[in-house]
Parts: sequence; structure tokens; C-alpha cells
Amino acid sequence: MMQLTFSPRPGTPLYEQLYRAVVAQIRAGQLKAGERMPGKRSLAEQLAVSVNTVDAAYQMLAAEGWLEARERSGFFVLPYHPPLAPPAPAPAAAPPRAQSPDPGWRYDLSTGGVDTGLFPFRTWGRIQRELLYSRPGLLARGDARGDGELRAAIAAHLRAWRAVDCDPEQIVVGAGVEYLISLLARVVGSPITALENPGYARTRRILHNNGIRCVAVGVDGQGLDPAALAASGARLVYVTPSHQFPTGAVMPAGRRSQLLNWAAAAPGRFIIEDDYDSEFRFDVRPLPSLQGMAGREGPVIYLSTFSRSLAPSIRIAYMVLPLPLLTRFEAAYGGYSSTVSRFEQQTLAIYMDEGHFARQLARARGRYRARMEALTGALEEAFGPGALEFYGQHTGLHFLLRLKEGPGEGEMVRRAADAGVRLAGLSGYYLSGAARCPANTVVVGYGALKDEQVAGAAAALRAAWG
Amino acid sequence: MMQLTFSPRPGTPLYEQLYRAVVAQIRAGQLKAGERMPGKRSLAEQLAVSVNTVDAAYQMLAAEGWLEARERSGFFVLPYHPPLAPPAPAPAAAPPRAQSPDPGWRYDLSTGGVDTGLFPFRTWGRIQRELLYSRPGLLARGDARGDGELRAAIAAHLRAWRAVDCDPEQIVVGAGVEYLISLLARVVGSPITALENPGYARTRRILHNNGIRCVAVGVDGQGLDPAALAASGARLVYVTPSHQFPTGAVMPAGRRSQLLNWAAAAPGRFIIEDDYDSEFRFDVRPLPSLQGMAGREGPVIYLSTFSRSLAPSIRIAYMVLPLPLLTRFEAAYGGYSSTVSRFEQQTLAIYMDEGHFARQLARARGRYRARMEALTGALEEAFGPGALEFYGQHTGLHFLLRLKEGPGEGEMVRRAADAGVRLAGLSGYYLSGAARCPANTVVVGYGALKDEQVAGAAAALRAAWG
Repeated sequence: MMQLTFSPRPGTPLYEQLYRAVVAQIRAGQLKAGERMPGKRSLAEQLAVSVNTVDAAYQMLAAEGWLEARERSGFFVLPYHPPLAPPAPAPAAAPPRAQSPDPGWRYDLSTGGVDTGLFPFRTWGRIQRELLYSRPGLLARGDARGDGELRAAIAAHLRAWRAVDCDPEQIVVGAGVEYLISLLARVVGSPITALENPGYARTRRILHNNGIRCVAVGVDGQGLDPAALAASGARLVYVTPSHQFPTGAVMPAGRRSQLLNWAAAAPGRFIIEDDYDSEFRFDVRPLPSLQGMAGREGPVIYLSTFSRSLAPSIRIAYMVLPLPLLTRFEAAYGGYSSTVSRFEQQTLAIYMDEGHFARQLARARGRYRARMEALTGALEEAFGPGALEFYGQHTGLHFLLRLKEGPGEGEMVRRAADAGVRLAGLSGYYLSGAARCPANTVVVGYGALKDEQVAGAAAALRAAWG
Repeated sequence: MMQLTFSPRPGTPLYEQLYRAVVAQIRAGQLKAGERMPGKRSLAEQLAVSVNTVDAAYQMLAAEGWLEARERSGFFVLPYHPPLAPPAPAPAAAPPRAQSPDPGWRYDLSTGGVDTGLFPFRTWGRIQRELLYSRPGLLARGDARGDGELRAAIAAHLRAWRAVDCDPEQIVVGAGVEYLISLLARVVGSPITALENPGYARTRRILHNNGIRCVAVGVDGQGLDPAALAASGARLVYVTPSHQFPTGAVMPAGRRSQLLNWAAAAPGRFIIEDDYDSEFRFDVRPLPSLQGMAGREGPVIYLSTFSRSLAPSIRIAYMVLPLPLLTRFEAAYGGYSSTVSRFEQQTLAIYMDEGHFARQLARARGRYRARMEALTGALEEAFGPGALEFYGQHTGLHFLLRLKEGPGEGEMVRRAADAGVRLAGLSGYYLSGAARCPANTVVVGYGALKDEQVAGAAAALRAAWG
């Protein structure tokens, strides 16, 4: 039986210390793929902790793709892919993009892509086929907010994973975040809206298209700055607290409370919490959602999407409306048809109900974490110690990379493009005041990067920036 | 070989006269299901007309479900279902809706439903499955306006069937008409908008949700009144010229020209042509679209949906933008993701390219025409000669029914509901001035009615209103 070295320290929950100890042993190769973990009860005795502590640690390890739970036989170690050392770069072929209208990038480090190899073609196809032949009733018009089965599955998932406090009735399913935000614009009455700066230019575009005036509010290492928000005159704020886009900052609990206090300080204030990629938190369990802190009567509109967890082309997103907004939503949109095909809605509902979605997320978490570690490792190796800094790499499918001494962001992006590497500079995400943007900093997305491209991409960037 | 009686009259195109002669023979039982039609060349000789004339008539008969074209063997007569005489009504069971929250209607004569038995489960499922396994690239984000293949298939279909003059670049695919109209609101700059009265209350709701002020413009037997439009102060007008909703009026060519002249008389005027159910024209070939009259530079935005031709829950609609609006559309929405799953887009594109869609429409036209004739026939039989009038029954999946001497519209709807028949009164479609609504008139939709329910529905209404 394995021996866990484990010396409890004060200040950190025991389950998290146990979680970290197991992760360290897997990384070090002391726990190998396929090995069976000790039973919860016996490990609890051995470590002199409670069974609940061991259970919490095991659940977290399974959720994040380190272990796999097998029914009636316990927990088993999943394969771990350590960072790869980069091989010598292949002689650079002329990038085809100069000749072709399609750029044909050698390495795509833009954000928003995902690993399509994770898509559950077989299971999805089977469920879809069964529904098509067995449920002709799904051809009829469905509920404007989405099919009840899917809303129930999403509510259960959100309760379990994000501590979102909601009833299926509060959920609105729609064909993409753009669509849902445009519906929201009307429901909250077109107030001045604060956006994170830097942030999603897309959100500004959507709000502008819906006649809403936006103001930019600065972001620091803890996310959106509440003092600047209070001074902005906004009545609605759009935030990404789990993983600020694009800086990767995680908003700590104290600042979340400040944000909720801001909303409570005047009537009609609302917070849109875009939790777009919180499924992919790699180091510790993510903080519960802001919505969960606020409760179902609270001022938070929770927004998320299956674009990253399933695929960008499967157009299913959703929002959780606070109870006070439900009546307004029904009044404006009750007569609309849902924008998502009911067959796709029901396919996803069954996919979630049968447990496939939770398993897929665990697999995806493991795969993306390994890729992030491989890529940051390969970059560090290529550029040498201390030449690079990374930010926000422990959640989501992108991170910031800063070259301590670099030729300037614009030049970095241009040279990368010349080497066939697609990535964006950080300054482009500033809605205003881009002059304050940290120098030599680019946004590196690795969702669509293939594992076998990791070393090549790092080498190509080294050659381009070296 | 069959003998067609055919004596050409001036003033009507020869192909249409030939079309009518064949229809008359099929209705009279002189041409029977399965019979082979004469070859085009020999019939042309026999009737002393050109081969083109015969070809045009045959194509039209095939398009409308009277004949079927079989490759390399010619045209064959399809089965024709004459109106059924209603049997004695079954003893009326208490309608279950009093006990249950779901009304459980015995007969659903509301609009918007379709015959789900026409949905191509097998072919659709096959294409969907093949795509899922063979085109993983479809998981990536697609074009904001929709996939090129689907836009090309729609453009070809519209050119051939509705004389729409457009390039695939002008087409925007979206998850439902509500969504597309809300995009349009921004593209045309939020002008005052004229709506048909009576008309779609839904359109007013959508425009209102997008901050657009609407005015109601009267409809007569030829559709929207152009003089009233000119006086309305509107800069945008929403019309259903092929089959006015709900009155069923078909706008004749003269009035279409007046409408286009209205648009040309001042800069920035646009016409939204909602061609929602023009696929189902039962008597003669429908007039070409207003868009086709105006041309691709013209002021018409053509709008339609697959809700009726495929199924309400398959959320694929589309619009054709005039070239002058394309740049504005791209500026506002170029960065959006399409709202329709790419797998569904590509399934539909292949379904259309392989010719299944045209065949399905022909089958559907035949089936719906037969049902319309059976239902109007059964109603006439039940109520006796001269007691009823029908309007707008030759296109689309609904018609108006007026009881010449009735207990009033409200009472008719209530009594029908008590007998388990779901239908709506005409007055509810008035956006204003419902006092001018014709008395005793209801809207009868038969898209979702089953063939075997036709006689029962007629008898139930007779019992309710008799």
C-alpha cells in the first residue's frame, strides 16, 4: 500500500493539504497511472483525519482529472503527462498564409479554440440518434426558456460544481452568449454598464448594439477594482471573477463581498457574472460562484456556455436570472421560441443526466492541465530561467506571457505571425487607456493546440523573439 | 394513352391552362394515381403547343405535389385524396383539459403547428450521423452569417422557387425569425415601422423589445393598403405579401409595385418581406417574391424560416439582405458567432443539395392541400350550403372561416374550446381598431391536424356552433 507523506499545517483546510500531497506524488511519479488509491476509511485512520476530509480530497482529485472513481472499487490514478522538453525546431517551412486567403497558421495560440479530440462523438451520436427515432414530439415548439429537462440538468450541475443557488425555472437556455446578453439588455432596463478593462471587446459590441452605454473600469491582480466601479456611475457591471478575461486574475472572496455590497447599496443594480471557463481550474477547487454568495434573490445574473466544455459550434449557452427579474423576462420574451434546436437540447440533457458530462470535464481538465504545464515548461526551458513570466495559467484555456526584456508587444506579435504562430497582444483588450498596458505581454491560448505541437510552438516563439 | 381536353383561352399563359386542365382531370378521377403522363414531346405535338409549355406545366404539377418526376421514366400521377364526408360524430367524451393543467385538446386548429409525420427522420438522421463522424472540423466556430454551404443551398432554392435575386453572401442564417428581426432592428437604424393590421403581434413585440416604435396599417383583400402606409410616417414596413397573416390575402402584382414605389420615394426606406409559408401554395404557382421584383440592390429584406417546411423545433431561419445593408450588418455583427449549430446547418445543406428538400416540399404540398380540401369540404357538408365562407385557403397552413350567421366570435371560440377544439378568433390579431374586425370569423390552422381527425373536427364545430 502507498505511503502518503502528509504533515498538516495550520491555515489551510486539511482536505486541500491532502489534495496537494496526492498531486505532488502523482507529479513526482510516486503514484503511477492505474494504481488504486487506499480506501477512504483506512487512509483516514492512517493519517488521523476524518473520513470526510479524505472524501473531500478524493472528490476534488477526481473532479480535476487526477483520479478516476470506479463504482464499487474505489479511486484510481489517471495518467499524468509531465511537461515535455522541446526538441530542436524543425527547419521552418515558409508559412502558407502568405499565399492563401486562409492564414494556415502553424500554431494557433488564439483564445476561444478547444481540443476537438475531447468531443464525445460516439456518445453524442448515439443519444441524438435515439432521440430522433423515439421522440417525434420534439419537433413541436418548445418553451421559450429552453426544455425543462435541460434546465434541470444545468441547475443540478451548477449546484454541484459552482454552488449556484437556483431553480430550473430561473434558467434561460439560448444560442450563444451574444444572444443572451442582448436579451438581458432589455430585462435590466438599458442602464450604464461597467466593463472590465482590459476585457472582452465583444461584450461592449453587444451592449452597444443594444443601445447601452458602457464605461471601462480597471482591473488589477484581484480582478475588477470596486472603488473605480463605485465612481463610474454604472448600474450594471459585467465581470469574469473566476478567471478574468484576459488577465487571468481570480477575484478573492473579500473583493467579491465588496462587489455584492456595491450592488446592495442602490436599488436596481445588477452584476453579470460570466463564468465562461471556470470548469478548467487546475490548482485548487475554484471559489464558489458570486451568484451562490448572493443567493437566488440576489443581484447576480450568472452566465455561462458549453462552447468551451463541448465545442464552439454547439450553440448552447445559458443564464441564471435572479428571481426578481423572472417576471420582467417573461413579459418581454415569453412568446419567443427558444433559439436552440430541441433535439440538441435533449441530447445535452441526457448527456448530462447519464454522467457523461462530468466525466468529460474531468478528462478535459486533466488534458488541458497537462498541456498548460507542458507549454509553460517548454517555454521556460526555451527562453531560460527568469526570462518569462506567466499569469493566470491555473484556470481556463489561456494565460498571459510577459517577456521581461522584449522588443515590444507589437513587434512580438508580428514576429510570431511571421513564424506562423497566431497570438494576440494584451493591449488589444484594453477598451481605453491601452498606454497603461504592461509591456511585452501577449495572450496565449492553448485550447486548440495539439499536444504534439507544444514543443514546436515554444521553439518557434523562441526563434522569433530571441 | 390519356386524352387531355384542352382548349386554349387568351389572357392566361398556356402552361398555366395546361396545369389547370391536368389538375381538373386528377380531381375528377380521370387521371389516376400511378398513371404515367404522356411524354413532353408527344403531348406538345398532340396539343400543338411548344415542348417548353408542357415542361413548365409538368414542373409546376410536380412542384405542387400532383405529379412525381421519376428519373429517366417521366412523370406519374400522385394519389389525390378527395374531401371526405364527415361520419356521424362520436359521442363527445368530456374534454380532459378541465381536469389537467395541459389542455389536452381533442382537435388543435391553432396556427404554427406542422405535420410531424412529414419530417425526414431517416434521411436527416443518416446525414447527421455521417457528418458527426466525418467532419470534426465542424466543431470549430463558424461564420457569423452561417456556413457557406448552407447559404449557397438556400440561395439556389430561393432563386429557383421564389425568384429571389441574391448571392449567398447576402444571406444570414439565424436561430429563428425573432432573432433575425432583432438583428435587423439595428441594421436599419431603428425607424418607425409599419405593421399589417391584423397581423403578427409577435413582430410588434420583437420590435418593441428592440426599442422600435410601430404603427398599424390596415389590410384589405389585397393585403397591406399602400395609401395608408404612405400616410403612416413609417420608414420600414413589415409585410407578408404571399399569404397575409392571418387574413390569407395575396398581394397582387399591381399593389406590389405600389409598395416598391413607396420605398423608392424616399431614401432609407426598407420593406421586410416575410415569406413564412409561401412554399405551400395550392392553386397556381405563387407570384415571385417582392425581393425578386426589387433586385439585389433594392429595398427589400427577404425573411423566411424552415419552421414550417421542416419542424418548429429545428431553429433555422434566414434573411436576404440588400447589398447596401451588408456593410452595416458586418460592422455591427461581424464578430458574433452564428446562432445555429454547424452540424444542423450542414445537415440541412446536404439535405437540400441532394434534392430531398424539394421532394419533401412536393410531398408536403400534396398532403396539406388534400387536408385543406378535406377540412373545408367536411365543414361545408356539416354546416350546409352557404352557411360558411373561407378566405385565404389556397396558400399556407391556415384559413379564415366566417359563419354567416353566428353567435359572435368570442362565443364561437368559447364553445369550440368547450368541445375540445383549439382555435383563435380573428379579432385577437388586430393591433388596433379590433372593432372593425369582421364578425363571426375565426382562424383555422390545420398544419398539426391529423387526416383522421378532419371529419371529427368538422363535426365537433358543427355541434358547438349549431
